[in-house]
Amino acid sequence: MSRITRADCEARDRADPLAPFRQRFVLPPDVVYLDGNSLGALPKAAVARLQQAVDREWGQDLIRSWNLHRWIDLPQRAGAKIGRLVGAKANEVVVADSTSVNLFKLLAAALRLKPGRRVILSEPGNFPTDLYVAQGLIDMLGGKHELKLVPGERIADAIDETVAVVSLTHVNYKSGRIHDMAAVTAKAHAAGALMLWDLCHSAGALPVDLNAAKADLAVGCGYKYLNGGPGAPAFLFVAERHQESIRPPLSGWMGHAHPFTFDIGYEPAHGIARNLCGTPPVLSMSTLDAALDVMLEADMKAIRAKSLALGELFLALVEQECGRHGFANGSAPQHERGSQVGLLHPEGYAIMQALIARGVIGDFRAPDMLRFGFAPLYNRFVDAWDAVAALKAVMDARAWDAPKFKTRAAVT
Amino acid sequence: MSRITRADCEARDRADPLAPFRQRFVLPPDVVYLDGNSLGALPKAAVARLQQAVDREWGQDLIRSWNLHRWIDLPQRAGAKIGRLVGAKANEVVVADSTSVNLFKLLAAALRLKPGRRVILSEPGNFPTDLYVAQGLIDMLGGKHELKLVPGERIADAIDETVAVVSLTHVNYKSGRIHDMAAVTAKAHAAGALMLWDLCHSAGALPVDLNAAKADLAVGCGYKYLNGGPGAPAFLFVAERHQESIRPPLSGWMGHAHPFTFDIGYEPAHGIARNLCGTPPVLSMSTLDAALDVMLEADMKAIRAKSLALGELFLALVEQECGRHGFANGSAPQHERGSQVGLLHPEGYAIMQALIARGVIGDFRAPDMLRFGFAPLYNRFVDAWDAVAALKAVMDARAWDAPKFKTRAAVT
Repeated sequence: MSRITRADCEARDRADPLAPFRQRFVLPPDVVYLDGNSLGALPKAAVARLQQAVDREWGQDLIRSWNLHRWIDLPQRAGAKIGRLVGAKANEVVVADSTSVNLFKLLAAALRLKPGRRVILSEPGNFPTDLYVAQGLIDMLGGKHELKLVPGERIADAIDETVAVVSLTHVNYKSGRIHDMAAVTAKAHAAGALMLWDLCHSAGALPVDLNAAKADLAVGCGYKYLNGGPGAPAFLFVAERHQESIRPPLSGWMGHAHPFTFDIGYEPAHGIARNLCGTPPVLSMSTLDAALDVMLEADMKAIRAKSLALGELFLALVEQECGRHGFANGSAPQHERGSQVGLLHPEGYAIMQALIARGVIGDFRAPDMLRFGFAPLYNRFVDAWDAVAALKAVMDARAWDAPKFKTRAAVT
Repeated sequence: MSRITRADCEARDRADPLAPFRQRFVLPPDVVYLDGNSLGALPKAAVARLQQAVDREWGQDLIRSWNLHRWIDLPQRAGAKIGRLVGAKANEVVVADSTSVNLFKLLAAALRLKPGRRVILSEPGNFPTDLYVAQGLIDMLGGKHELKLVPGERIADAIDETVAVVSLTHVNYKSGRIHDMAAVTAKAHAAGALMLWDLCHSAGALPVDLNAAKADLAVGCGYKYLNGGPGAPAFLFVAERHQESIRPPLSGWMGHAHPFTFDIGYEPAHGIARNLCGTPPVLSMSTLDAALDVMLEADMKAIRAKSLALGELFLALVEQECGRHGFANGSAPQHERGSQVGLLHPEGYAIMQALIARGVIGDFRAPDMLRFGFAPLYNRFVDAWDAVAALKAVMDARAWDAPKFKTRAAVT
């Protein structure tokens, strides 16, 4: 294969049907941002919407906005938009709380739906907070249940009649490896278990079809590929067939059948709404809602094609430019991974800090992974070039080998 | 008492030491806003802070803001500010999630701290969602516990050795009646029970001293008198002496001892931080944080004095101007109530809608209460006059007796 040049990358950007989306985002100058899988960039539409939510809705219309601007059903309206991105019906998704809280709700509900079964099955490589939430739930319930961890590649074979719910993250946060949603879900169902998918690294990053896979439950976050802003509210999915059977452990007023009659007894709302709990953070949720509109304008197949192309280009450039610097590929193969790639290097932490100091922002995942996320709505092919050029400069000059880059910050 | 005039009210505004605070808020023209106990008005400082959080922190600094702008300890920093308003130490309060979710956390923790006791004691007049949350928790735990409801005036005598935790809202959302925090807490402790206070209608409205009362646990919201914006994140308090004994049921990554090592086992953080769960909505939380700074500039004793004076003036004006219109006083006596008053009338719903149509915004609480909240940072004495003048006009003309005001909206 002939050597790739920056001009080649520029040519690919000119031919990219998604290229116009970049101007819909605010992006800092002199930065190559490859961390949209941790925090998506700021959509300009979100700025405008937030200004409206603050100045008009809160500032002028005040409490009346619950009706006037429909704050009251914003969780359902934003949820319906996410539903279109993950293969769910409009009435199967709501936006609420955080991913962790939503996972707690649905794991608790799942254990009640399968009272004779004691196992929550997951993998050690699941996102840690998902495991923590399961542990806290089991602890709270008195230790009658068990969190069983089996490596991802063997998990389908480990589903047996003791398993109440299989809880997996669809796209692994480190390797990017995608679980076969339909196949694992079918295995779970064959054993009589429920299937819960965490879509944090999937929603907005690649095509997802929960209903085609017959998934039972799902959660996901709003601040990664959905670009909803830092700590944006999360979402949850309950397949229609389960909705009336769910007993919400977090039974707050927003999930009540008649939230404004102020009854003293809890009566769950019909449908997905019973999974709401307290009053949602309207400003953060409005921001997410506006970001979703931008995402929905794009074709998810085009997003997936560009995502894979960006990752492959990046890896090819690392091979071409940094081949002698000792990076190992920490990513799953192209069609088996989400919208990220990982490079392994013993000095990964310091290298990432040196890269960030040069304006190339990825992140580090212990013990040795430099992680780069590709957000096809705003990342360009030249971003891959510029990132690898910076990486080459860091490595050629051993720039990472400085005390300031080796000191671990509070957040990495 | 001689007749009160609008000029009298204007004179009181001129003499009001808190009057300058009004210009720190955005308030709509031609509106008298007496619903700050449902949604506080917009502080100008919050607008500026949110713009900074969006444009600079999210837009330009992106993921780096977790360190650069200290998003990572914003829950603790905002919590410490609330601590100053409610008589707690800086390390005893965090901002997180919603009031309902926080109540779930602390009730669950309380039941574990008192394993031999099966009762959550509350009152039927508690805010309904507080009762719903207790019901959902008990249901989830298999029905081994009981939510026992005893009318507020008799509750102190109902605390016995079966009670694990007494869960009360400090200021009643309808009558405004204040529980004697120190006395009820002492009764709870004498019986070996824990005491949990909901401060939704207290924080920022009147002096609260959790530690002087030896309270164990507390929750509260950010969007009423704290002016944190619609659905602003809530807070929770755990007295220092209990912090290491709390087993958080919602055990997410933000409450982990080492959130960035990505261990697969949950290990609770030391101190109050273990009560955090998932990633917080940073935009909504930043807004609240800025609003707290405004509140902290004011003297809480002055806030209380003005609050009581506004309520008394309002009631005196209702008597003077609307005496023949059949309103009953639905409020607790002056020094026994929070920062609100209630009028009872069989046509309360329609009357409130007609008032709102005239730009006087209070709210309605079924079956028959018109509720008016007074926020001393931005409400004036002339607001009381103008509100009652509008009420008189509505009543004199029977303006409420129109179909458009009698039709119940989704949210009231």
